Amino acid sequence: MNCNVLLFDDFETLDAFGPAEIIGRKPDVYGLGYYSLSGGVIKSAQNVPVLTSPLTEITGGGVLLVPGGIGTRQLVNNRDFIGTLHRLANEAEYVLTVCTGAALLARTGLLDSKNATTNKLAFDWAASQGEHVCWHKRARWVVDGKYYTSSGVSAGMDMALGFIADTLGKPVADKIAHEIEYIWNNDKDNDHFAI
Amino acid sequence: MNCNVLLFDDFETLDAFGPAEIIGRKPDVYGLGYYSLSGGVIKSAQNVPVLTSPLTEITGGGVLLVPGGIGTRQLVNNRDFIGTLHRLANEAEYVLTVCTGAALLARTGLLDSKNATTNKLAFDWAASQGEHVCWHKRARWVVDGKYYTSSGVSAGMDMALGFIADTLGKPVADKIAHEIEYIWNNDKDNDHFAI
Repeated sequence: MNCNVLLFDDFETLDAFGPAEIIGRKPDVYGLGYYSLSGGVIKSAQNVPVLTSPLTEITGGGVLLVPGGIGTRQLVNNRDFIGTLHRLANEAEYVLTVCTGAALLARTGLLDSKNATTNKLAFDWAASQGEHVCWHKRARWVVDGKYYTSSGVSAGMDMALGFIADTLGKPVADKIAHEIEYIWNNDKDNDHFAI
Repeated sequence: MNCNVLLFDDFETLDAFGPAEIIGRKPDVYGLGYYSLSGGVIKSAQNVPVLTSPLTEITGGGVLLVPGGIGTRQLVNNRDFIGTLHRLANEAEYVLTVCTGAALLARTGLLDSKNATTNKLAFDWAASQGEHVCWHKRARWVVDGKYYTSSGVSAGMDMALGFIADTLGKPVADKIAHEIEYIWNNDKDNDHFAI
């Protein structure tokens, strides 16, 4: 199954590459690809230049991973981007958002009446992007059907391990956490940064 | 001060981008750049294509960040790479290695008689790359003068916060950890993955 990582200028580095590290440790199951609206070099907020393919090259299905970051502030008003995200998220088997990536997904309307969470320091702004979303202020990550949404930045790693546990079994997630010497907060309701 | 991230094919994604996320949150102090031996597109072990500049473009001084990953297995025998790393590490004000990045640095001889640590699952191999290094089996990260070495993958984030605390003060590191919703293991001797 493809895992398509959707990038844009000023995405938050760890939002994308924390989950990519974890999901990328099962290359026999998930094949990672990096995409942006027009393709080409995209720079993260921490100046990482990533070579991306255009979103038109994504074939349907698979996993869609949407990071957050300061770049989302403009992107929520980009009709072309939000329209494309709507189509891709609809077609995906799973959609994972990290941090304010949930604000982008909320703008598509696909999270309406669904449970979700987002970054705690930017909670009010993100929540305002989807007034019909059931936003959770206390959650490391939230699962509602095929939609996984996580809190800020490093919460994406806990969610990614949760996603691996849900799809491939907890022992697989535990093994990955051990390999990367990561203390996994495996309780999605255990949120040290709740507001 | 420049923070030069040294990449190579099959580097471990989070080794580089965990610390980059953290150090990159102080862009007024540390300017991040991404380099490889010959420049061009470098792919991580998790398939992230990063556009790099050639190592010859690094000016002296600054911080040098060296990730690990499966790509180090060949690279320890690349005289051109190790020679260049020796020069760059010598010139740098600080050298930070994550995971088996310590094996690369050990091959330069610059860690001889110094305290260091590395990935716990690849400990014996990494340690064999520097027989005169004082390797620590129980350490989240180790500081010896200008050399910071960390355990596997996610330990690089704890070390990066430790580096920020040492150079800019603990409140700055605590603030970054809070912003990225990360529970910082701030005790470098607290190692859950010791062997």
